[in-house]
Amino acid sequence: MTHTDAPLPLFPHRHLLGIRDLSPPDIEILLDRADRAVSISRQSEKKTSTLRGRTQINLFFESSTRTQSSFELAGKRLGADVMNMSVASSSVKKGETLIDTAMTLNAMRPDILIIRHQSAGAAALLAQKVGCSVVNAGDGTHEHPTQALLDALTIRRAKGRIGGLTVAICGDILHSRVARSNIILLNALGAQVRVVAPSTLMPSGIEQMSVNVFRNMEEGLKGADVVMMLRLQRERMAGSFVPSVREYFRYFGLDAEKLKAAKEDALVMHPGPMNRGVEIASEIADGPQSVIQEQVEMGVAVRMAVMEALLDPRRNPEGPGA
Amino acid sequence: MTHTDAPLPLFPHRHLLGIRDLSPPDIEILLDRADRAVSISRQSEKKTSTLRGRTQINLFFESSTRTQSSFELAGKRLGADVMNMSVASSSVKKGETLIDTAMTLNAMRPDILIIRHQSAGAAALLAQKVGCSVVNAGDGTHEHPTQALLDALTIRRAKGRIGGLTVAICGDILHSRVARSNIILLNALGAQVRVVAPSTLMPSGIEQMSVNVFRNMEEGLKGADVVMMLRLQRERMAGSFVPSVREYFRYFGLDAEKLKAAKEDALVMHPGPMNRGVEIASEIADGPQSVIQEQVEMGVAVRMAVMEALLDPRRNPEGPGA
Amino acid sequence: MTHTDAPLPLFPHRHLLGIRDLSPPDIEILLDRADRAVSISRQSEKKTSTLRGRTQINLFFESSTRTQSSFELAGKRLGADVMNMSVASSSVKKGETLIDTAMTLNAMRPDILIIRHQSAGAAALLAQKVGCSVVNAGDGTHEHPTQALLDALTIRRAKGRIGGLTVAICGDILHSRVARSNIILLNALGAQVRVVAPSTLMPSGIEQMSVNVFRNMEEGLKGADVVMMLRLQRERMAGSFVPSVREYFRYFGLDAEKLKAAKEDALVMHPGPMNRGVEIASEIADGPQSVIQEQVEMGVAVRMAVMEALLDPRRNPEGPGA
Repeated sequence: MTHTDAPLPLFPHRHLLGIRDLSPPDIEILLDRADRAVSISRQSEKKTSTLRGRTQINLFFESSTRTQSSFELAGKRLGADVMNMSVASSSVKKGETLIDTAMTLNAMRPDILIIRHQSAGAAALLAQKVGCSVVNAGDGTHEHPTQALLDALTIRRAKGRIGGLTVAICGDILHSRVARSNIILLNALGAQVRVVAPSTLMPSGIEQMSVNVFRNMEEGLKGADVVMMLRLQRERMAGSFVPSVREYFRYFGLDAEKLKAAKEDALVMHPGPMNRGVEIASEIADGPQSVIQEQVEMGVAVRMAVMEALLDPRRNPEGPGA
Repeated sequence: MTHTDAPLPLFPHRHLLGIRDLSPPDIEILLDRADRAVSISRQSEKKTSTLRGRTQINLFFESSTRTQSSFELAGKRLGADVMNMSVASSSVKKGETLIDTAMTLNAMRPDILIIRHQSAGAAALLAQKVGCSVVNAGDGTHEHPTQALLDALTIRRAKGRIGGLTVAICGDILHSRVARSNIILLNALGAQVRVVAPSTLMPSGIEQMSVNVFRNMEEGLKGADVVMMLRLQRERMAGSFVPSVREYFRYFGLDAEKLKAAKEDALVMHPGPMNRGVEIASEIADGPQSVIQEQVEMGVAVRMAVMEALLDPRRNPEGPGA
Repeated sequence: MTHTDAPLPLFPHRHLLGIRDLSPPDIEILLDRADRAVSISRQSEKKTSTLRGRTQINLFFESSTRTQSSFELAGKRLGADVMNMSVASSSVKKGETLIDTAMTLNAMRPDILIIRHQSAGAAALLAQKVGCSVVNAGDGTHEHPTQALLDALTIRRAKGRIGGLTVAICGDILHSRVARSNIILLNALGAQVRVVAPSTLMPSGIEQMSVNVFRNMEEGLKGADVVMMLRLQRERMAGSFVPSVREYFRYFGLDAEKLKAAKEDALVMHPGPMNRGVEIASEIADGPQSVIQEQVEMGVAVRMAVMEALLDPRRNPEGPGA
């Protein structure tokens, strides 16, 4: 990343397991770096040699178009060698454990391991075992820190700040690691966070995360600067708890009428993939307030920034495997 | 591509959606460029830096050994970063639409998107939505333009020309985008095109595409310079229309006896994958008139030429995403 | 590989199909080269340009985390363009034969083809057909030569030699190409090889491979320098021959008690993926005598050495496709 000569700030961590582990300055370091990374992907020549010769392994136990692709492109644009390991082609089928799979990959001397797993804590468990940097790309209903960072970057670029904004996170809070990571990050940077969901999709004790709880969209969105919709994760719901899609959209789907409650220039966000007509109306998803495409673009930039920061040779001159 | 200093001709299009959109000079530009690309893959060092730092995404909703591999190698040999997205690992499973998937990838700032999809028109639809170049790698029964270009390159290299040749396209015309693209291209360059198929596999109104229609192999092959066999696409046929394989081979499979009707030096072609003993006898597929392997080699060269031409900086100095 | 100026020894073969084809000096050449390759993967910058612009295709008809990943990383670290072809996405589904698939890939002008296939002899068959180098990454129950080489490298680095050592190979000998390749290699380099297995998992006529046969672990391990466990390949067993896991572990699983029979400093090896509690106890797999992780690391190094040796321009100045 050569477009300015100012030295990049030093990020003190070796892993990125959750927003919980980051201080506000840590977060600002990553967002500042990501701001600089945005321009690389907008160039015709998108390749840097920052991570040339480094090995990045994407170990995805849950499939994901956007997250895996985003990490893959981020790594390739930094010049790393990227290897994808999806569960479908892995030895997990042969009965090998998560740890054995990870230790095997670790022995191949990667520099960074990106992991998505259905169990909360999987990334942290790996980080204790392997000699390389670990990035949590989503562990069960626990955390998804790069999603929260890309959301923060999107908001900061649109609004110029995060502190003091009112952000309403709406929908399936119960199953959402995206919500958890966002609540932690937004609070850390001084936003006021609201959660809006039906009772059945609201985790008990959520108030302890310093959020204001709403069970009605109009009230929850009133005066909000940012409306962050979540995907209805029907695949994680037991049969009896699956709401009727029509009913859900009527009360909790974001449409033009409900959006009026928010500020006139409120941002509309969604982590994707969207269920159009379920949690969001198409006219809103594609409308002028939507920054859903920008979120995706910021995703690549944030991941470039995170990987570059974790592998910064100034932090760890012996290399991450040392 | 440095082996001559003569400037390459300028290709005026940003997308390659179908042969239908190309003028004869457009086609000649691509074939000339492909002729030059052949030599790169024949070198021990097969890498150029023409597309260094460019991002190519292969978005395949139908699986394909040869087409996806061919595009992947073409991109890598041009120095691009190539990312494969197969439907199996995509968010389509989670209910995301084709357009949402494409818009998500588009937001990651690719330079070129290669798409194969089961629906006619899918590539054209994407091209209207995304900011990058789009190559149609097969859309339903509509078009498969790089296949027609590689076939034309194979013929031109073997026969020295295309104009004036008689080309018999034989077999499952009804389900074949390969046939459609070839008919359009060969007519554009002045060949005489015949189609040979049983009535059940002949599209109604095919005569309007300027072809001579035959329902008998011996008659259709009589004096032909090129015999182009098609794969019997049994997976696209409803149960009642599936012909008996033995019956089909007897009447429409290319064997030594039927091939005698064509010119002595007629080329035998097949886009692959072959059903040996169904549409073609093994002795013919592997015989001296077969250029089936050459077709595969020309496939990589044509795709290198197409991608290089679409991303030619002279055409679009701001980059395709501008 | 620039860390010493001494010229690398010349490897005389174009393919690596089995240990059977190698002389002891051939094996030593590969192990010496691999010793030098180890250091590359231990650097922060792991990339060399030895195979820059070369095309490597991994054609895997059986899935494998560690072997395919190991070859992929080996190729990338040598600077090659690597393309993975797994059976799931290949035209084999459409009825294309192994040979047609290979010939198609061959026409794309790869420099090296890595093949894993469920049939013994598949790699040798391909080698006769294609114009590039072929590496057998496992063919049915026949051979898996890079596994034997990485095992030999692991032993040689730990013990300083192979000749004169006593190596006990234990478990599912019947279904194991790993056992076959190891028996041949270890005998070639002068080790004393024992095989230890229940009668139902011991191939008839195994004595003709110059091994001592044991049907009891304590006897087979007595005084051994190396204890090499095999994976119980239940997926290859017909229903009636599947042993009870508990029974199997009791008699043939490596635990602390049985390991006492071997030398105090005996190495414990396993090709992975492990069935913990079936063929090996976790305390042994993770214990101080285990070199299972080193085996994985040596795997990348051996594959780098093999590919570099096969494509050595001194051997074949016209390139392997000439």
